[in-house]
Amino acid sequence: MGEQERLAKDHALRARAARVIPGGGMYGHQSVASLPAGFPQYFERADGCRIWDADGNEYIDYMSAYGPNLLGYGNAAVEQAAAAQRARGDCMTGPGPVMVELAETFVELVDHADWMLLAKNGTDATTICVTIARAATGKRTVLKARGAYHGAAPWCTPAREGVLSEDRAHLHSFHYNDVESLEQTVDAHADDLAAILVTPFKHDVFRDQELVDPAFARRVRELCDRTGAALILDDVRAGLRMAYGCSWEPLGVRPDLSAWSKAIANGYALSAVAGGEALREAGARIFTTGSFWFSAVAMAAAVACIGEARRSHVVERTQALGERLRAGLRSQASAHGVGLRQTGPAQMPMILFDDDPDQSRVNRWTAETVRRGAYLHPYHNMFINGGHTEADIDRTLQITEEAFAAAAARR
Amino acid sequence: MGEQERLAKDHALRARAARVIPGGGMYGHQSVASLPAGFPQYFERADGCRIWDADGNEYIDYMSAYGPNLLGYGNAAVEQAAAAQRARGDCMTGPGPVMVELAETFVELVDHADWMLLAKNGTDATTICVTIARAATGKRTVLKARGAYHGAAPWCTPAREGVLSEDRAHLHSFHYNDVESLEQTVDAHADDLAAILVTPFKHDVFRDQELVDPAFARRVRELCDRTGAALILDDVRAGLRMAYGCSWEPLGVRPDLSAWSKAIANGYALSAVAGGEALREAGARIFTTGSFWFSAVAMAAAVACIGEARRSHVVERTQALGERLRAGLRSQASAHGVGLRQTGPAQMPMILFDDDPDQSRVNRWTAETVRRGAYLHPYHNMFINGGHTEADIDRTLQITEEAFAAAAARR
Repeated sequence: MGEQERLAKDHALRARAARVIPGGGMYGHQSVASLPAGFPQYFERADGCRIWDADGNEYIDYMSAYGPNLLGYGNAAVEQAAAAQRARGDCMTGPGPVMVELAETFVELVDHADWMLLAKNGTDATTICVTIARAATGKRTVLKARGAYHGAAPWCTPAREGVLSEDRAHLHSFHYNDVESLEQTVDAHADDLAAILVTPFKHDVFRDQELVDPAFARRVRELCDRTGAALILDDVRAGLRMAYGCSWEPLGVRPDLSAWSKAIANGYALSAVAGGEALREAGARIFTTGSFWFSAVAMAAAVACIGEARRSHVVERTQALGERLRAGLRSQASAHGVGLRQTGPAQMPMILFDDDPDQSRVNRWTAETVRRGAYLHPYHNMFINGGHTEADIDRTLQITEEAFAAAAARR
Repeated sequence: MGEQERLAKDHALRARAARVIPGGGMYGHQSVASLPAGFPQYFERADGCRIWDADGNEYIDYMSAYGPNLLGYGNAAVEQAAAAQRARGDCMTGPGPVMVELAETFVELVDHADWMLLAKNGTDATTICVTIARAATGKRTVLKARGAYHGAAPWCTPAREGVLSEDRAHLHSFHYNDVESLEQTVDAHADDLAAILVTPFKHDVFRDQELVDPAFARRVRELCDRTGAALILDDVRAGLRMAYGCSWEPLGVRPDLSAWSKAIANGYALSAVAGGEALREAGARIFTTGSFWFSAVAMAAAVACIGEARRSHVVERTQALGERLRAGLRSQASAHGVGLRQTGPAQMPMILFDDDPDQSRVNRWTAETVRRGAYLHPYHNMFINGGHTEADIDRTLQITEEAFAAAAARR
């Protein structure tokens, strides 16, 4: 089947969207504008680890909705809890009792947490962390790693259009995993340091991921202790995928605040800020809210998601599946003489090609896998979810083998 | 029944929440910390115009979840559309075709709209409007009415804790409905004016509401035309309650951008920015996104909500019910010799007392109505919804009559 025919409905939808949605029909991280031809824009259905595009083409999905799908699309435990709450009430004139249950669950789950706040976007959570840190310290400067994504409000969006220099005032950068760069940046701002904001590992788009150097993480903690700045862990993308708790718990490094979203309610819109006792009072002093922040269904989904994540050992299972995929790809790439770089945690794989300055090789290869039913991404880290099985990984490896051969033939 | 017994479960939940949620157990606009004793914090169930607190006490609800409930809690048409979409998929690796359907619906609904963007919070929508206006004009200054609420991000939150002066740089205020003040503020910033941000009427907390003076609205439009600034209508709170379209359509004043949220999906988390052709390109240039912004269920709910709002004539019906409530209260207050000020659109009532500098009279009266099963608010505008009936209004008026008598007896 030709590409035009395979995605005929998708292209018809895009033509309609181009009239009523800016950016030629889509915006934000789910726009396929920067993806190779052959990636569908619209999806009709999702179940477990599978998605179906508007034309009915089926894919084994490695994006997991860019993170929210932790346990598999439509996970029964989560959907049952959500449905039971929905039958009672969702967005009401006050929160449901489930808000207390979720906060207690979270405080029990997360080592450093003595309290939590709930919001909707990951950006809400990182913004609230920064605001609390500034309220608590009376200082202004926030340090972050160069190139790290912490959301899409004016103070943090990667773009500069419509953003003022004031929006980013007192925001300075260090190099991730570079202790010397961190120390220099801290020294340059030590008298005005409100927070160091850091992701649990380096997961920037278009680049190899880097696990955190434990010495770097410990140094971040020491510098915060020395200066009185808050250590903010941005666990929006990785939270619940690396550990049952903060992603730095296995290292023994405790943040003062952590930001959560994406996977915590298995796709229901929710984000969270968790904090320690020392910042409880500042957490109460700031004012932030949203029309849907007290909605009960997403909270019931989160309680169920956290319980099911632990019960089903999703961290260990997705890690093992990621390692199975990684090992298979390594051997295929080697057989095809292709230099493949697979980085980051196995359950959040990033796959890039050597000698690929314009991404044409990874674009060609992922376009071939997508055409064959494995949705792999050429520049964003991926996410194994609890709906994946060994059989799905093995089927994916058949597809990637064909894609290596096809991409080689097309060169 | 004593208050302690009536809200025993509620108070037990508050004690648990005080340990795990900052602010003594709740934050944001749904915290009851500033409400009189007797207002429950937690709600167990909602249906139509009714809510039940954690202790099972039933209320005719006049807050409608602080706005999101437009058609009645659990409206069948909305829930059926949401369930049908949910069975297929919600938060996926791309949007569903329903996103195009919603954008087309919105562009057809809203006079000034040629395109729309979707997000989650009302604050997202107002922030995106400001960002687009700055991107389009290359200018920085945004004017808003003093005291007007436009969200709870650092640039607009009513609090100052953790907020830097830079966050509010280039934001200046005029007095709502005061043409002279508007003109002076525009003149002072005419060379750097990106936008005038304005609500469709004055709906500040703790104050009498004011309908917009049509001459003021037209002057806002003229000044934007003269300076090249964007007219941003913040219809987050009032949208779909005053008109089927922007709230200024009945006046014939078209904004360049409008911000929507709350009622557009009858309680599902969604917000929107609508814009005209001239700002389409700037709308595409900015970068903003969120993990749940492409979720399909809330979009299906919005399509159904907009359709059902028109089919059921919700604007006219809630306005008539609001007028019935207003007339009944007017005559009760007069009989009791109480000076009552009822302001704003009848379907979004604000009720305040004369000679009440510390709000003790309105607090006492609403505490009496809440105890008797009518949830009236002492300092925030209320919202009639499509679940209310004439019988509910009449039952409420029995309660308010008793409350006037009880409050008088307690003085």
